[in-house]
Amino acid sequence: VSFDFLARLQQGPVLGDGGCIFELERRGYVQAGPFTPEVVLEHPEAVLQLHREFAHNGAEVIQALTFYGSRDKLGRDPAEVNRAAVRLAREAAPSLGVAGGLSPTPTFRHGDRSEVLQLMRQHLEAQLEEGVDLLIGETFLWLEEACLALQAMHIADLPRVVTMNIGPQGSRDGFSPDECARRLEAEGAHVIGVNCSYDPQTSLTTTLLMKTGCYLACQPIGYLHECGGPFESWAEFPLELESRQLSRRALGNFARQAELHGVRFIGGCCGVAPYHVRSMAEALGRKPASSAKSADLRLHMIPEVRERSAAEKLSAAAP
Amino acid sequence: VSFDFLARLQQGPVLGDGGCIFELERRGYVQAGPFTPEVVLEHPEAVLQLHREFAHNGAEVIQALTFYGSRDKLGRDPAEVNRAAVRLAREAAPSLGVAGGLSPTPTFRHGDRSEVLQLMRQHLEAQLEEGVDLLIGETFLWLEEACLALQAMHIADLPRVVTMNIGPQGSRDGFSPDECARRLEAEGAHVIGVNCSYDPQTSLTTTLLMKTGCYLACQPIGYLHECGGPFESWAEFPLELESRQLSRRALGNFARQAELHGVRFIGGCCGVAPYHVRSMAEALGRKPASSAKSADLRLHMIPEVRERSAAEKLSAAAP
Amino acid sequence: VSFDFLARLQQGPVLGDGGCIFELERRGYVQAGPFTPEVVLEHPEAVLQLHREFAHNGAEVIQALTFYGSRDKLGRDPAEVNRAAVRLAREAAPSLGVAGGLSPTPTFRHGDRSEVLQLMRQHLEAQLEEGVDLLIGETFLWLEEACLALQAMHIADLPRVVTMNIGPQGSRDGFSPDECARRLEAEGAHVIGVNCSYDPQTSLTTTLLMKTGCYLACQPIGYLHECGGPFESWAEFPLELESRQLSRRALGNFARQAELHGVRFIGGCCGVAPYHVRSMAEALGRKPASSAKSADLRLHMIPEVRERSAAEKLSAAAP
Amino acid sequence: VSFDFLARLQQGPVLGDGGCIFELERRGYVQAGPFTPEVVLEHPEAVLQLHREFAHNGAEVIQALTFYGSRDKLGRDPAEVNRAAVRLAREAAPSLGVAGGLSPTPTFRHGDRSEVLQLMRQHLEAQLEEGVDLLIGETFLWLEEACLALQAMHIADLPRVVTMNIGPQGSRDGFSPDECARRLEAEGAHVIGVNCSYDPQTSLTTTLLMKTGCYLACQPIGYLHECGGPFESWAEFPLELESRQLSRRALGNFARQAELHGVRFIGGCCGVAPYHVRSMAEALGRKPASSAKSADLRLHMIPEVRERSAAEKLSAAAP
Repeated sequence: VSFDFLARLQQGPVLGDGGCIFELERRGYVQAGPFTPEVVLEHPEAVLQLHREFAHNGAEVIQALTFYGSRDKLGRDPAEVNRAAVRLAREAAPSLGVAGGLSPTPTFRHGDRSEVLQLMRQHLEAQLEEGVDLLIGETFLWLEEACLALQAMHIADLPRVVTMNIGPQGSRDGFSPDECARRLEAEGAHVIGVNCSYDPQTSLTTTLLMKTGCYLACQPIGYLHECGGPFESWAEFPLELESRQLSRRALGNFARQAELHGVRFIGGCCGVAPYHVRSMAEALGRKPASSAKSADLRLHMIPEVRERSAAEKLSAAAP
Repeated sequence: VSFDFLARLQQGPVLGDGGCIFELERRGYVQAGPFTPEVVLEHPEAVLQLHREFAHNGAEVIQALTFYGSRDKLGRDPAEVNRAAVRLAREAAPSLGVAGGLSPTPTFRHGDRSEVLQLMRQHLEAQLEEGVDLLIGETFLWLEEACLALQAMHIADLPRVVTMNIGPQGSRDGFSPDECARRLEAEGAHVIGVNCSYDPQTSLTTTLLMKTGCYLACQPIGYLHECGGPFESWAEFPLELESRQLSRRALGNFARQAELHGVRFIGGCCGVAPYHVRSMAEALGRKPASSAKSADLRLHMIPEVRERSAAEKLSAAAP
Repeated sequence: VSFDFLARLQQGPVLGDGGCIFELERRGYVQAGPFTPEVVLEHPEAVLQLHREFAHNGAEVIQALTFYGSRDKLGRDPAEVNRAAVRLAREAAPSLGVAGGLSPTPTFRHGDRSEVLQLMRQHLEAQLEEGVDLLIGETFLWLEEACLALQAMHIADLPRVVTMNIGPQGSRDGFSPDECARRLEAEGAHVIGVNCSYDPQTSLTTTLLMKTGCYLACQPIGYLHECGGPFESWAEFPLELESRQLSRRALGNFARQAELHGVRFIGGCCGVAPYHVRSMAEALGRKPASSAKSADLRLHMIPEVRERSAAEKLSAAAP
Repeated sequence: VSFDFLARLQQGPVLGDGGCIFELERRGYVQAGPFTPEVVLEHPEAVLQLHREFAHNGAEVIQALTFYGSRDKLGRDPAEVNRAAVRLAREAAPSLGVAGGLSPTPTFRHGDRSEVLQLMRQHLEAQLEEGVDLLIGETFLWLEEACLALQAMHIADLPRVVTMNIGPQGSRDGFSPDECARRLEAEGAHVIGVNCSYDPQTSLTTTLLMKTGCYLACQPIGYLHECGGPFESWAEFPLELESRQLSRRALGNFARQAELHGVRFIGGCCGVAPYHVRSMAEALGRKPASSAKSADLRLHMIPEVRERSAAEKLSAAAP
């Protein structure tokens, strides 16, 4: 492979991208509610541009937009969607890692396990035809479903990342973060952690409760609610999350802390936009292409803004 | 002309787009501070995609990204930048209105008036070569500079919009909103109003203080600060505005109120993104292309979200 | 009378107090929902202290806690409650103005007009026995109910203030702010305006829509919601309003603007606490007793806070 | 002693009060910056009432207002202040625990250790004359100063609580939370933990990093900033913290989590007001006196509020 994900992880933190589904909803191409990825066929240029933005701002791994791309969630044959998703990710980022993957299936709540496994394999097949560098199974509320995903992911010989959609209380089927981690490690994951639904600090806490020999991953949402809980439970979900939106500084702080605590696959989920990724990249000491456009308020048109900027520099320099 | 702006205004509210400069800063292509438009040459695909998103979400007029495109602000010959800007707007929206225009010049604060006028004419010339449907002079703090812009805009026979960057207190050179309006009307503007720096409600108040025979325009920022004032004076400006970000509902409410009070050119400035434009369009009773992706939480994967959605509908239906 | 309210109004703005009911709910003595004033009997020391705080922070008029003190809302004979309420206000502020008054009655929505009038007279009688300096009829959604209140208030020869609980759209019975004002003036009010439910800027806008020979009053809530509307319609009402709470600076800005636009009876309603009143007093150029405790961050224990304070002063001093 | 603090701790969580200094600043009696307690002499009725409110809302321990009451911080003989402080706490809460205590001394940063120790003993003496049930040394940034406080506290035979003002990074003199805990335990503390400067979740994280045989205490501020850090570093500190204010629900969630993780002395610091204490009490399954005034929106005057309340109940009841 051109992009050796495991070798990169060994060297230090790898930066992922942000949340494509939510960002494309805001751009008018994804429906809130189902949150499915038909946009890869309907408006490929929008997906391509967003992938490019994440790459431009420092993401090293681009996730193909295959989320909720299983037949039972899509309501159609997923092959075309999943192939297009991988091609767009590759086109946007030829020299970066391209991740394919799996996500929750509606069937899990009422079907039998072999049916779920079959849906997951089918979900992966088209992706594998186009060629990906790693697989990410993500956003699982049930440990059991995550294990099925891991099982399905064994059809390829690729690095396997699995992230649960859980807080410190653990999974819906009653497993603590640490129990989840040990089970996922035993089932053959290379990278283990959490993604979605919880703010950066809560997500980091949950991740650090996982004692594992695997690499750790942490990909929180870009929102914070004072009352905590997963964001699906907030009154603002999903269309009035603005007042809960985290700033670039908050995400930068998160990335620095995650690195400090040894997390190796750092990134964002819903609500994490290109500028947050750049802030995470810079917090990790990097200079993505977009850093060429770093803010310089001394060049602002309004004199008061230039002067405020100077006074803040003075203040920051105070011992 | 293919797009007859004045005829459209006569029929009812015309919806503009949002803020390109701020959105492209968040995507990593514009530098905060100078806020100049070199991106049209450096990353035309990013500009093209953003214009498309505004069109997809209901904008009827796309502003070419010529903001701060005068020679003294750009620090280079503006012709290439301004030509590219207009071409991108036209490519993104062949059947919509494309606006060229003028913005404040650094020279105004220390140069003589004829020098400013010359810079403004030069700023316009390249735009006119490519062909635009209307001209917008915007974001003027001084009435005098706005009048110079109007004078420069007379080199073309196109509809002239002028919007001041003022609150209810009026311009930096001491004119009330109403005095500004009367003077701009006398100088030959077709549309008069405000843009930038102030939240929707304050902007609407300022606009309604203008008693004029011209059409009214109102294009506020997508942010709100409890302490009021122009956003350049907030501690959060420009990189930590997230907690001040307005929701789509807030912008929809604004559009409805603006229509009710007779404003005819409604749109947004910094912080107004594609999803806000869609909300404004829908608040005006329209169905932009993106309305095909209207939220439907009954299709959400998590049962609790589906149920909450149902209870809210019930509540909304209560007499 | 010792406190000549009308003479004071003639001299310039008179500052009222903030919202007792909401503040006493936060202190544990009033029930959210009914919001009735039994606390004056159950915990008189708590009411006395709060009145003292408003006086200490610059209020010139203390409203006796007779809100919702009519028989049909209280569910008991109101005489004892209303007498105690007036006595506590007088005890807390012997040299200031003490206001008695009227508020909406549940009976209005289904009873006949003479019944409402009788309830209102009964509501006032006990207050008048204890002696008040002026009467405030407040928070009326219907113009007709406000007019009944005015009619009832004529049993005493005291200054009459009437404030509607309306936004720019006007009253529930379909009258614009200006129509309300003209009718209330005709019915004999001395001071006319709005109180409750709307943020300061919206309340001020509504007040300024009233063209009247009476003095103007404006007593908004201390909360702001980006989506506007009366606060009873917000999801956060009434127990999670914290993130909507306005700062002292915001209320100070409001008071200054209100004075500038000629409002003469300035104050606050729900969510306006003693520190907001002090900020309004100081914004009007006054030095209430509490100004002796004006913040001085140069005396802070932590060196970084002292230094930041110095840098901000420097920045504020920049031309 | 009438109030046996250690016996209570053994039975389960003990609930403390909130932040007197900040609340009295908002009421107009304490100066922001120095934050010293002269109010106990200048306005004893204000302190008495606030203590009563905390007791009324469920606090089991009332801290006498002796914070920053050492001679070097007060600038006067502290005896009178400290005696008055203890008397007021006892008067407000005769049957609850009354805590005396120590806080940081300016001398620590430049004086020698024996001087600090002498100041601290002097700070305690007057308190002990009036009689307290326990001692709380709080808000220490340096472990060394906390140890001096503990040493001073040995002049009485009373339960000793020491809480550091630290985040997960540890103390200013370079000790991790766990190192702080082990040292304080060795120096004879009965209860160890954190207070002030950090939001509930961060404070709880820091507390749980302390592995100790002592009881744990956690008394966070009532504010949350998305960017983290101690609140003294926020631009909003100390006069514009409103938009960072936590709701009662957030504090209730905190109390429940703290109990779950075994914290035994739960309470609040700056920004935690009486209504937050009531919410913590109720979250711990208790019914403080103020619970008699629990919200009931079915009794609201406006029909829409009553109906919304009903719809929310329905939604909450959904499986």
